[in-house]
Amino acid sequence: MLIVQKYGGSSLATTEKIRFVAEKIVARKQAGNQLIVIVSAMGKTTDSLINLAKEIHSSPPDREMDLLLSTGELVSVALLCMAVENLGESAEGMTGYFAGIQTDNFHTKACIQQIEPSRVIKELNNGNIVIIAGFQGISSENTITTLGRGGSDLTAIAIASAVKADLCETYTDVEGIFTADPKIVPEAKLIPEISYNELLEMASTGAKVMQSRAVEFAKRYDVPFAVKSTFGKEGGTMVKEISLKEGADVSSVSLDEKQAKITILKVPDTPGIAAKIFSALGKENINVDVIVQNISKENFTDISFTVNIVEVEKTMKIAKAITKELNAAEVIHDTEIAKVSIIGIGMMNHPGVAGRMFETLAKENINIKMISTSEIKISCVVSKSDGTKALKSLHKEFIQ
Amino acid sequence: MLIVQKYGGSSLATTEKIRFVAEKIVARKQAGNQLIVIVSAMGKTTDSLINLAKEIHSSPPDREMDLLLSTGELVSVALLCMAVENLGESAEGMTGYFAGIQTDNFHTKACIQQIEPSRVIKELNNGNIVIIAGFQGISSENTITTLGRGGSDLTAIAIASAVKADLCETYTDVEGIFTADPKIVPEAKLIPEISYNELLEMASTGAKVMQSRAVEFAKRYDVPFAVKSTFGKEGGTMVKEISLKEGADVSSVSLDEKQAKITILKVPDTPGIAAKIFSALGKENINVDVIVQNISKENFTDISFTVNIVEVEKTMKIAKAITKELNAAEVIHDTEIAKVSIIGIGMMNHPGVAGRMFETLAKENINIKMISTSEIKISCVVSKSDGTKALKSLHKEFIQ
Repeated sequence: MLIVQKYGGSSLATTEKIRFVAEKIVARKQAGNQLIVIVSAMGKTTDSLINLAKEIHSSPPDREMDLLLSTGELVSVALLCMAVENLGESAEGMTGYFAGIQTDNFHTKACIQQIEPSRVIKELNNGNIVIIAGFQGISSENTITTLGRGGSDLTAIAIASAVKADLCETYTDVEGIFTADPKIVPEAKLIPEISYNELLEMASTGAKVMQSRAVEFAKRYDVPFAVKSTFGKEGGTMVKEISLKEGADVSSVSLDEKQAKITILKVPDTPGIAAKIFSALGKENINVDVIVQNISKENFTDISFTVNIVEVEKTMKIAKAITKELNAAEVIHDTEIAKVSIIGIGMMNHPGVAGRMFETLAKENINIKMISTSEIKISCVVSKSDGTKALKSLHKEFIQ
Repeated sequence: MLIVQKYGGSSLATTEKIRFVAEKIVARKQAGNQLIVIVSAMGKTTDSLINLAKEIHSSPPDREMDLLLSTGELVSVALLCMAVENLGESAEGMTGYFAGIQTDNFHTKACIQQIEPSRVIKELNNGNIVIIAGFQGISSENTITTLGRGGSDLTAIAIASAVKADLCETYTDVEGIFTADPKIVPEAKLIPEISYNELLEMASTGAKVMQSRAVEFAKRYDVPFAVKSTFGKEGGTMVKEISLKEGADVSSVSLDEKQAKITILKVPDTPGIAAKIFSALGKENINVDVIVQNISKENFTDISFTVNIVEVEKTMKIAKAITKELNAAEVIHDTEIAKVSIIGIGMMNHPGVAGRMFETLAKENINIKMISTSEIKISCVVSKSDGTKALKSLHKEFIQ
């Protein structure tokens, strides 16, 4: 089998851990597989480099930042190669550039344009374990780019697609994907199989599993991958295309406490007002999540939406300008909210699910402030103080 | 003017120092010059990386070592670019590879084969300060190589040659080249101008000024360069081709306390014995310095030579095998020696110089154990305990 593995920074945080990872890799190789391994920078390396840069420049230029940060992954590549060779196997380490990862020119958040894996394949055929620096590529202007947060996952999935790997495994410090965050819901269970879409919805509902970009790439090019633990139990979760299952129900519940609610009150209800508000926010790169527009009364309406809590100030500034422009009454915000979601393929074919969700929350005396639904997800915004209780009751109702 | 500058690791050891270096660079640029800057890794970065590697592998493989060590210079490049841009000038940072530095395939001690500086020149013409990672290049197999100790000096001189720079400056933590080590001889004076050959002889006589490889490259391609202090006084020493000066005398004196003397006693004096001894040592990469063969007595001779003190054990092992093979009596060694040298172009045209040297040492009651001469250098091996006294007396006699 041709296997692509990815190890994150916490799996490579010390030389001892690197040696452990090398043993895992070598065991798979000696079982008769071909291996490509994608690595992140060791532990907190990236943060230290960012701090160095900030000592030099209050807002370091993106292109130089990419050159700086790309060195972190190279250190991991070199050390892991040494550890593999210390175990008697041959390894070939390479930068993203030499692995053929071509990106656009958007430094610090580049997108992969194309992968030209001929050198990777040549080294595999020479019997080498190929170890590639994740998170980086080369622009059309021949400058080093990085792929942004979670970039190493993206590298792994893109390489797996380019070389037509039989299996792609991303190793991390959790044992896989759970029905809820085990830190909040101790009864949470490992999900053995999940669809790309469910994982995407989980990410958007606040579950910190994997960056959406990598999952979207996997979905688009249909690259099944496993999420596994480096140091814990084998097992993990397989992420792949899953067709609508008969009787499929809720597969996971999640809680997002990092949202804030913005409400513009008494907006004159004329066509195009929503467009005005949300295109203004879009221009400033502010991601809006749940949107609710009240039923119009006497030609006025209220519009509420949620944004990430770190964007509140920026959002309020824009919202205030729009309020004035639209002749609306005023704009208010609430940061004491939480969003609970239930996720599952085929959920919408079971009409009772939404009702069961609302009933469960009502029984716990939890007031619902906003509701948002998609094909495979229902989210409710509640008070922040009710968040954990809501998550636990939904997990009990739908999973256990 | 097109200027190539090189800054060593001690000049870039902290972000504060990097900002200081950036100010120097920007001032030169704004005075109307074009600038190419070669940088080493920050302070002790290279040592930390070596330690990491040794935690993984007792003798880390060379190719992976190169990939690992090459990251140190890249961090300096990125940070110095940021510091330059913070001062309002534009900078273009690049790896050795993108600067067109092609080497052979001897990892950790690669030789530069060719420089293809088109990208460097393009960026200069775009008005950028070009900042290049020193000490590294790319092999014909497209793997990252390093140039070994002092490699950044070599990068600077090779780039200066390739772009036909008007001036090459290497910045370090000393103010230039002195008539003797100022730590031992406080009266030592800065030498404003020195020839390549004198600097080469100084390096071989133990003065730690600059790696010989870089100076040899400068001599071969006639690249004049200045040795200057980053944080100290302007001024420095200009190293260039100097034709034989009338009346030229001794320009510097030096002391090397890191030599050991090996003597093979009672060697049967037949043709080819010296070749046998020294080709055996050469095969093991042992550098032999002073060689003295006694006048033959009754068809037997003694052969003495000096090697670096760290090579004594290895040398003795080889010498013992040869002693047996040649039917010589025995081999002994002496680590309590020092080598004092006087260096100066045209010295040999002044027949009195050697005599004056021996007389000076005799007056101080210093016994000479070995003598070696070249066109521009006379070295005497003396007891280690006499070394400092010998150096001071020779400096007084010839320089002051």
